[in-house]
Amino acid sequence: MDFLVEIDASRAYELPSDECADLIKRERVRGRELMEENVLRHFWRLPGTRSNIGIWSAPDADKLEQILESLPVKPYANIKVTALASHPMTVNTSSNSHS
Amino acid sequence: MDFLVEIDASRAYELPSDECADLIKRERVRGRELMEENVLRHFWRLPGTRSNIGIWSAPDADKLEQILESLPVKPYANIKVTALASHPMTVNTSSNSHS
Amino acid sequence: MDFLVEIDASRAYELPSDECADLIKRERVRGRELMEENVLRHFWRLPGTRSNIGIWSAPDADKLEQILESLPVKPYANIKVTALASHPMTVNTSSNSHS
Amino acid sequence: MDFLVEIDASRAYELPSDECADLIKRERVRGRELMEENVLRHFWRLPGTRSNIGIWSAPDADKLEQILESLPVKPYANIKVTALASHPMTVNTSSNSHS
Amino acid sequence: MDFLVEIDASRAYELPSDECADLIKRERVRGRELMEENVLRHFWRLPGTRSNIGIWSAPDADKLEQILESLPVKPYANIKVTALASHPMTVNTSSNSHS
Amino acid sequence: MDFLVEIDASRAYELPSDECADLIKRERVRGRELMEENVLRHFWRLPGTRSNIGIWSAPDADKLEQILESLPVKPYANIKVTALASHPMTVNTSSNSHS
Amino acid sequence: MDFLVEIDASRAYELPSDECADLIKRERVRGRELMEENVLRHFWRLPGTRSNIGIWSAPDADKLEQILESLPVKPYANIKVTALASHPMTVNTSSNSHS
Amino acid sequence: MDFLVEIDASRAYELPSDECADLIKRERVRGRELMEENVLRHFWRLPGTRSNIGIWSAPDADKLEQILESLPVKPYANIKVTALASHPMTVNTSSNSHS
Amino acid sequence: MDFLVEIDASRAYELPSDECADLIKRERVRGRELMEENVLRHFWRLPGTRSNIGIWSAPDADKLEQILESLPVKPYANIKVTALASHPMTVNTSSNSHS
Amino acid sequence: MDFLVEIDASRAYELPSDECADLIKRERVRGRELMEENVLRHFWRLPGTRSNIGIWSAPDADKLEQILESLPVKPYANIKVTALASHPMTVNTSSNSHS
Repeated sequence: MDFLVEIDASRAYELPSDECADLIKRERVRGRELMEENVLRHFWRLPGTRSNIGIWSAPDADKLEQILESLPVKPYANIKVTALASHPMTVNTSSNSHS
Repeated sequence: MDFLVEIDASRAYELPSDECADLIKRERVRGRELMEENVLRHFWRLPGTRSNIGIWSAPDADKLEQILESLPVKPYANIKVTALASHPMTVNTSSNSHS
Repeated sequence: MDFLVEIDASRAYELPSDECADLIKRERVRGRELMEENVLRHFWRLPGTRSNIGIWSAPDADKLEQILESLPVKPYANIKVTALASHPMTVNTSSNSHS
Repeated sequence: MDFLVEIDASRAYELPSDECADLIKRERVRGRELMEENVLRHFWRLPGTRSNIGIWSAPDADKLEQILESLPVKPYANIKVTALASHPMTVNTSSNSHS
Repeated sequence: MDFLVEIDASRAYELPSDECADLIKRERVRGRELMEENVLRHFWRLPGTRSNIGIWSAPDADKLEQILESLPVKPYANIKVTALASHPMTVNTSSNSHS
Repeated sequence: MDFLVEIDASRAYELPSDECADLIKRERVRGRELMEENVLRHFWRLPGTRSNIGIWSAPDADKLEQILESLPVKPYANIKVTALASHPMTVNTSSNSHS
Repeated sequence: MDFLVEIDASRAYELPSDECADLIKRERVRGRELMEENVLRHFWRLPGTRSNIGIWSAPDADKLEQILESLPVKPYANIKVTALASHPMTVNTSSNSHS
Repeated sequence: MDFLVEIDASRAYELPSDECADLIKRERVRGRELMEENVLRHFWRLPGTRSNIGIWSAPDADKLEQILESLPVKPYANIKVTALASHPMTVNTSSNSHS
Repeated sequence: MDFLVEIDASRAYELPSDECADLIKRERVRGRELMEENVLRHFWRLPGTRSNIGIWSAPDADKLEQILESLPVKPYANIKVTALASHPMTVNTSSNSHS
Repeated sequence: MDFLVEIDASRAYELPSDECADLIKRERVRGRELMEENVLRHFWRLPGTRSNIGIWSAPDADKLEQILESLPVKPYANIKVTALASHPMTVNTSSNSHS
């Protein structure tokens, strides 16, 4: 299933700048892994902010929680999760939201 | 997985009283079915209101959506859904949240 | 550019049921056209609600406004639009948010 | 009676890491005791957060307050309490919310 | 235990004036009964509004819910309930909040 | 007249523990004086929090402000004040809200 | 004592236009009386709205409630009342807030 | 001085369609006059909504209120007004916000 | 024109106590000047808080901003400004809001 | 396209005063460049605050994000971005919002 996840990483930027830079670097490595695994499907920056908003796929909330816990930025992030259901229009068609 | 679901049925009570009574009756039949199927696991009345709050189990949000659509009260309900993850303390123990 | 668009169509369901059914039918035709034009890229149902949330692509807000005005459900919809910027991680890579 | 209790323990994670680890350890011991006493009946993690949400049983608010005060994490927690009433559907039936 | 209960009866005043007058009259009869039973201990008008705020005593939320359901104004009221615990200062003293 | 006063003393608990303990001790002495003077008529703990909610009587807001300024905890407290009017049902009766 | 009172009279403008005109006329007569009695001391229109915001003087909330009940617009008004205390700077000086 | 003014005209669209069309037509005539008088300096549609947001210039709030009252859409509009001050960067320069 | 201005000076009280005392003293000198200049017309303490609420007169928002910047407490204050229009009832009468 | 952008720079004023002064100076240099490039078209101070509100033009949200990242004050700013569409009244006319 899919989740809309908004991650506000503002607090990471209050770290000393080298710690912050290292954290962001590790976060991006982890992010790329999750993109390759088709977990982190789409994401965007909310312009002007330290927040991103994205579509994450996981079998259920337990697995999503496990994935979010694996993010280096997690201890510094405020995260909002919204469960998403498939829309009737995208069910049973070839042009669904992931293809 | 589990979901916290708050259902405000206030609008049902704006129906003519016999329609409302019939609706509540059909809602309770459906509710009992869902309890027997271990979908609707626990629920309570928010005192003083026309809202109930409950714990619903479904494999994912698609199945939950399908179940909520099956409720007779659905067209008159305002519903809020929150995805829940297992708590580390209840994982891998015999006293988990459902037993 | 991309926009996060949340469309609450609750008021459409207050129409007489045949008008509502006809409206939903026309809405879906228009939705399919927008999916084929790669305007309406992804969308989901917020479970338990009459709202959907989606990712829409348009050159700018003027074009998006024109597209939203073309929706049959528009007169009955409450719509929230959030502008999205590309995330640094998805820029200049082959696995960007649309491929 | 039952209470819906949301406990945000974010501030505990601002402690030095060994103090935090010790606190969490003691919190879990206390949590297990409360589960065995059928006080803490069900609880979940809100995914992506340091908050849990649970169903607590106590004879009244005084006893609940006393129990919450006994939590090692209490000084670092923001707690919201909602009183719950039994739902008409679960009263006088064998499948009530606790069995 | 005690509950802080805010009752907004605005919708009662949208009834035809004789129905409304009759309702208010019956509400006051019921209110006096509840005062005599030491259930409705204190209450006030929020100035300028159709809301009252009061302190209600009941063994638990189930009994409170039953009492609120007995109010003639209930179908027209928006009600907020907050559970209250005794304050350490008023416990084990002769000058507690009810004497 | 009566006021509903909510006092959140969370910041007091950020003081060094002996300062905090001394402050709470002095606060309780002052609280008892105000109870004896029939100023602080009723109060409760909001369960799970560092807030209390109470009914305070003072001739007017100037006197209430003077009383609140006299609280040792005042510099560390966030306070919300709501003016209360007598309810028509409790006016001109022997069972009014203070007897 | 003084109160900040915000009166939103939007609903009055949903009456048939002659009823509304008559109501406004009676409201202004009552308003002038209250100005002459130094009850309604200052008031303003919130630009673009059907709301006014004003400073009302009354011995206490009971008297204020009685005055607000006397307003012809009361049944159609949403009213917010905030109790005000004298500011230390205006106490014991000749240039206080009312002279 | 300048004001940020947000006008939500949703209620106008609940009028019978010919009345609504006539109202919008008259609103646009008035809008053009105000643009020519340099009162309505800039305005935009909030995409997906019946709201516009604009910059209005008037000597003070009294004159702005008089202008807003002159809008045909006023009885059907929810309007929010924010007073704006010149920014230090645009004061005493030739490239100020209006040239 | 008049403005409703709410000034929350809580942060000033986080200064060392002698700095705070000096700041308050200078603030009051400035306040008295503004009262004598008929700029600061009326103001009150919100009981229980570090906030005052007042009516300020200035030709426009630029002048008000300049005045607010002149307050010693400005760097420590959270300020909310609401533009006020004259009420039709107080226009063209001798008993307007300032006499 | 145009964006309404509100920038709250309060945190910049928590820097040591010389760092803050230097930052503001550099911010104004950058602001002037953006004004000359017709990116920063109009902006105002919200009176009493450290926030400005402005109209920014950029081809899309990506370019706006890049511009906002170029502001010296960015690391200390809380920024809200709202996408704006042209209003039907200003389209295809010579007196549009930018001339």
